[in-house]
Parts: sequence; C-alpha cells; structure tokens
Amino acid sequence: MLNGFRDIDYSMSRYEKGKEVLEGIQNRTVEEIFKDLEDVAPDLSRFVLEFPYSEIYTRPEVDLKTRELCTVAALTVLGTIPQLKDHISAALNVGNTPTEIVEIIMQMSAYCGFPKAINAMVGAKEVFEEKDLLPLTGD
Amino acid sequence: MLNGFRDIDYSMSRYEKGKEVLEGIQNRTVEEIFKDLEDVAPDLSRFVLEFPYSEIYTRPEVDLKTRELCTVAALTVLGTIPQLKDHISAALNVGNTPTEIVEIIMQMSAYCGFPKAINAMVGAKEVFEEKDLLPLTGD
Amino acid sequence: MLNGFRDIDYSMSRYEKGKEVLEGIQNRTVEEIFKDLEDVAPDLSRFVLEFPYSEIYTRPEVDLKTRELCTVAALTVLGTIPQLKDHISAALNVGNTPTEIVEIIMQMSAYCGFPKAINAMVGAKEVFEEKDLLPLTGD
Amino acid sequence: MLNGFRDIDYSMSRYEKGKEVLEGIQNRTVEEIFKDLEDVAPDLSRFVLEFPYSEIYTRPEVDLKTRELCTVAALTVLGTIPQLKDHISAALNVGNTPTEIVEIIMQMSAYCGFPKAINAMVGAKEVFEEKDLLPLTGD
Amino acid sequence: MLNGFRDIDYSMSRYEKGKEVLEGIQNRTVEEIFKDLEDVAPDLSRFVLEFPYSEIYTRPEVDLKTRELCTVAALTVLGTIPQLKDHISAALNVGNTPTEIVEIIMQMSAYCGFPKAINAMVGAKEVFEEKDLLPLTGD
Amino acid sequence: MLNGFRDIDYSMSRYEKGKEVLEGIQNRTVEEIFKDLEDVAPDLSRFVLEFPYSEIYTRPEVDLKTRELCTVAALTVLGTIPQLKDHISAALNVGNTPTEIVEIIMQMSAYCGFPKAINAMVGAKEVFEEKDLLPLTGD
Repeated sequence: MLNGFRDIDYSMSRYEKGKEVLEGIQNRTVEEIFKDLEDVAPDLSRFVLEFPYSEIYTRPEVDLKTRELCTVAALTVLGTIPQLKDHISAALNVGNTPTEIVEIIMQMSAYCGFPKAINAMVGAKEVFEEKDLLPLTGD
Repeated sequence: MLNGFRDIDYSMSRYEKGKEVLEGIQNRTVEEIFKDLEDVAPDLSRFVLEFPYSEIYTRPEVDLKTRELCTVAALTVLGTIPQLKDHISAALNVGNTPTEIVEIIMQMSAYCGFPKAINAMVGAKEVFEEKDLLPLTGD
Repeated sequence: MLNGFRDIDYSMSRYEKGKEVLEGIQNRTVEEIFKDLEDVAPDLSRFVLEFPYSEIYTRPEVDLKTRELCTVAALTVLGTIPQLKDHISAALNVGNTPTEIVEIIMQMSAYCGFPKAINAMVGAKEVFEEKDLLPLTGD
Repeated sequence: MLNGFRDIDYSMSRYEKGKEVLEGIQNRTVEEIFKDLEDVAPDLSRFVLEFPYSEIYTRPEVDLKTRELCTVAALTVLGTIPQLKDHISAALNVGNTPTEIVEIIMQMSAYCGFPKAINAMVGAKEVFEEKDLLPLTGD
Repeated sequence: MLNGFRDIDYSMSRYEKGKEVLEGIQNRTVEEIFKDLEDVAPDLSRFVLEFPYSEIYTRPEVDLKTRELCTVAALTVLGTIPQLKDHISAALNVGNTPTEIVEIIMQMSAYCGFPKAINAMVGAKEVFEEKDLLPLTGD
Repeated sequence: MLNGFRDIDYSMSRYEKGKEVLEGIQNRTVEEIFKDLEDVAPDLSRFVLEFPYSEIYTRPEVDLKTRELCTVAALTVLGTIPQLKDHISAALNVGNTPTEIVEIIMQMSAYCGFPKAINAMVGAKEVFEEKDLLPLTGD
C-alpha cells in the first residue's frame, strides 16, 4: 500500500513513477489493471500512467486520500461504474473509510440527482462486499 | 465563517439549520443567494436548504473542507459554472487554499477532459480575482 | 395503485408520506425497492422517500400521470436505465398507456439523439414484456 | 396559437407541416426562429422542421401540452438554456401554466441535481419576465 | 459493402434510400439491426432510416469513411456502448482501419477523460475480436 | 500553418513539440491561447501541450485534418463552446472547409440531439464570421 508520497522516487521516469503510484494505490500490477487494453491500445494505458498517475496524483499539494475521494465524487457524476469501482477500491487503499466514501456518494445526489448516486452506491456496495466490509458499522 | 460543525444547533428546524449552514459557508444571506428564485420558485430554494444543507453537509462523518472540495470536483465534471463558482467560494470559506482547489480542478482533466477542466479553472480564476488572491503563490 | 393525491394523508411524517407515495406508484414495498442500499446507505433511501416522494410528487399542481411521463423523458436523456425502467413501470401504474411512454421516448430522440432514445426504448420493451403488454396494439 | 392537432393539414409536405406546427407553437415565423442558422446551415433548420415538428409533435397519441412539458424536463437535464427557454415559451403557448412549468423543473432537481434545476429555473424566470407573468400567483 | 455514394439510387424514397445506406454500412438487414424495436416502436427505426441514413450520411460533402470516424468520436464522448460498437463495425466496413479507430478513441481521452475512452476501447476490442482482427499489427 | 507532420521535429522535448503543434494548428502563440490560465494554473496549460498536442496529435496514423474534424464532433456532443470554437478554427487551419465542418456538426444532431447541434452551429457561425467566410458557397 502507498502511504502518501514518501515512497515515491521522483528520479524515476514518468512511466515508472506512474506505475509505482497506480500499483501502490490499486494493490494490483499494471498488467492486471490494463489487461483489457493490451492487445488493442497499450499506449492508452501508458498515457494513464504517464499523465494522471505520474504527473497529477504525485503532486504534494493535496494528499492521496483527498484526491481519491474527489475522484469518487467525479466518477459518480460521470456515471462510469467500472472506473468508479476501481477508484472506490483505491480510495479505501489510501486511507478512506467505507463511511467516508458512502457519505460523498450520498452528497452527490444533490449535484447529479438520485439515479446516478444510487447506481454509484450499488457499485460501492459491490466493492465493499468483495472486501468483506459489509454491513457498515459506522467506523 | 463556519468552523466545522460545532456552531450548528441540531435542535433547529431543517430549514433553520440549512439556512445557518449555507449562510455560514457562503458568507451571504439566503435572500442574496436565492434572489433569482424568489419570485418564481421559492420552494426550490427551500429544498436546497432543507435537503443538502440541512441533511447532508451537517453529517459529521466528513468535514466541510473535504465535502466542498468534492463538490468542486463534481461541478467541474457537471460543467455548471455559476454553481461551481459559488462552491469555489464556499471551499475557500471553509478552509481550502486556492492551491488545493486548483489542484482538484486540474486532476479532473483526467476524468472529464481538458475543456471542462479549463472552463472550471477560468471560473476559479474569476472567484480568486474577486477575492484579490491572484497571482497564486503556492500557499 | 395510487389514484392521484386523494389517498395521501398529509398529516403523516415526511418519511411515511414518501413511503406511501412510492409504494403506491411502484406496487412494491420500500424494502424491496431499496434492498440494494440497505446494508450500505439506508439514509440515501430515506432521502429519496423524504425529498422527492414526500415533497415533490405530492404537490397537487401537476398530476402523477404527467409527472411520471416527464421523469421518463428526463431519465431517457440522463441514460440511467435501471431507474428509467422503474419509472416506466411507475408511469404505467399511475395511468399512462404503453403508447404514451413510447411516444415520449421517441420524442426524446430529437433532444438527446437516437442512441439514448434507442437504449431507453429497449428498457421500455423489457418492462412491457415483464408485464405481458407486447406487442403494442396502439391502445 | 396552435390548439392541439385540429389545425394541422396532414396533406401538406413534411416541410410545410413542420413549419405550421413550429410557427403555431412559437408564435414566431421560422425565419425569425432560425435566423442564426440561415447563412451557415439552412438544412439543419429544415431537418428540425421536417423531423421533430412534422413527424413527432404531430402524432396524436400525446397532446402538445404534455409533449412540451416533457421537452422542458428533458432540456433541464440536458442543460441547453437557449432551447429550454424557447420550449418554456412554447409550453406556455400550448396551454401549460407557469406553475406547471415551475413544478416540472423543480421535480428535475431529483433527477439531474440542483445546479441544473436552478439554471433552468433562472431561464424560466427570464421567459416569464418577458411575458410579464411575474410574480407567479399560483394560477 | 457500400463504397462511398456511387451505389446510392437518389430516386428512391427516403425509407428505401436510408435502408440501402444502413444495410450497406452495417452488412446486416434492417430487420436484424432493429429487431429490438419491432414490437415496441417500429417508427423509431423508421426515423433512423429516414433521417440520418437517408438525409445525412448520403450528403456527398464528407465521405462515409470520415463520417463514421466522427461518429465513433461522438459516441465515445456520449458513452452509449451498444451504438458505439455498431458504428465501430460500420467504420471498419466503410474503409477505416482498426488502428485509425483506436487512434480516434485514444484522442478522445483529452476531451471526455480516460474513463469514457477506456470503456470505448473495450467496446472496440470486442468488435475487433468478433472480426478476428486482434492483436493489431499497426496496419 | 502546420501542414501535417512533416514540420514536426521529433527530437524536441514534449513541451516544445506540443507548443509547436498547437501554435501551428491555432496560428496563435501559446501565451495568447492560455492567457486565462497563466496566473492560476500554468501547469494545466503545460499538460495540454505535453499530453494531447505532443503525444496524440503528432501520431502519424491519422492526419491532422481528420483528427480536428473528430474533435469538432466530440466537442459538439460535449457542449463546451469556447473549446469548440478554437477547434473549428483549428479544423479550418489544417485543411477542412467550412462546409465539411458544418456537415459534421449537422450529423451530430442524430447523436446528441438538435439543441447541442444548433448551439455548436452558432459557434461555427461566429468563427466563420470572424474569418469573413460567410455566406458559405458550398466550397
């Protein structure tokens, strides 16, 4: 698990740095994370590593815990459930509690309406179930 | 300014509680905030006070600073600039620095694309200018 | 089935009123409707009951038949199929014919494009099939 | 003003039929309505007349009053304010009251969130002001 | 397969012309393409034939190869995967290479963000797999 | 003006390469293009240069003329008018005719509905007016 930024080696190439950050956040290898893209668009996975994970998530002005919670908010509004589930998992891995994630998805109902908030919450439930975190106890 | 939840009187009605939270976050009266709606749909402003500001922003599981930053993320994706500017202002009022807001809008470029991130950043710049916070010094 | 507003007891609490309206519209218990949320975010279901179903659908200025048809239009544009299907079912329950629902989804093709209109129509077909209403006879 | 479908001459060409419907709904000539497009894409205005106004709004299964209210719902979700204002005006012209329009926009807050509902309501207010219909008296 | 516009008989009715274009682009009969709609909204399929396929795709100012690539771009942003897959198939049928399609979806990541670009790429992969085009060799 | 890829010096840094491409496409300096961002988020402009303009638009698999037309399609669907206008201008600069741009925006009406297509066309008209290209003569 990646605990903030202290494990990041800033001398690495953009690719290597992004790989380290993404693997640290997701607890999976980039090969697993991007296996759907490997035969068709490996450069798209490379861009994901080199741009957001190397150049944005590593900026120290905001910590990873807050960044991932903001991404959960964004993907709830966007409605892309596979990526939302990956980022709910990431949000847990960098220190958010299930309750904090639930709260932010619930808050989104005021900004993107109940249908998208409910669909996101069902996605959260699936992630929590896989990680054996249900029922929530209010942590 | 509203410093977290300690100033909220939980015995108030939903309307009064939402009014106190929203006015505390925005540093404006609800009459000013909702003057566009008063002749046409006062109940819509009432719902904004009674639902998100009374029942969501007051929940102690996530602090106001983080909630407002997540709302900035969400409104960047949604692309509704007037409300984004109000929440950038609110985000500053509850303790976020301009730099944190800029970082989160920049992060959104990976999730909603550059055009919406740039339009949101121009909105942020207008808020910062009104508050005489430019140029940013990296706080 | 809920025939307009005459069955609503306005002295009930917001929760009870919303529960009665939603159960009347959906012909299902709220426990069934929200079973996906119960372990993870029961308060989100409560907000759905207390805000739109208690405070909007009960307003007598527009009848339930028209409100549900407008919601079908909105969810076709939004593209959230599970909620669209629930509201197509609700629209039938409060007095819309399958043909009226088909007409409004078809009309949406001019506002949100053919792909979303077609996806919504496939959702409508699934609801009509479950209710043994196909083929449509032009009612 | 177009009172439902009885004034439509179904023997006309698609273009003429669409022109009659749109001018009847908007109380303006198509030359005024589409003046922005005339030098650049006259065929786009022709498609608007020939497809939705000739082939959808003329279908008798749903009346114009309900169709326009559903379009107001859709455009609130879509967030395209110029077209929303045209359809709010059209909705009034075919028999909806300002209160019914306000109710449906307010209802949309549950499906597309408060920011889009508020922006739509501000658009409605501008239309009502131009038509000297404010303040609303509950008609 | 439809090679540009030389096979289109412009004396046909709009329906027949649209049918010829769509069947030529998709290598399937319209009965197969629209079988989901036939019991519920045959007029919606008719509109698809008579409006975009008869009146837009047949306009000679832009060739079919470029038009279909632009539609792939649009549907990546819109996020409607079933239609995107149909148009990726169509884009191949009118002369685009898999690599060109991959490039345009990848380009969209800058305009609609990575989640939608990745979901579109997974859709592309499924189409390429069905057509036995993987792994891509850079054609 | 940038005529395809033959003027790109691939030995440059990502920033320099992106700057050359964007300035070539837009016929403006990056200082002008990004002046709104300079006091608030210069790194966001840097990312635009280093990621899409350095790493996507320079890929030789699809030419700039087609890429810019696809971006016009995408931004019509997305509805971000300032960026759409910049890319309509860019699309002209890399060899598209006004008629090709009009055709693609018109085509989008089938995928994102008429309101967004009309708003995009009004944006196109403003760009064509600034460049003294109206009325279109069918080039």
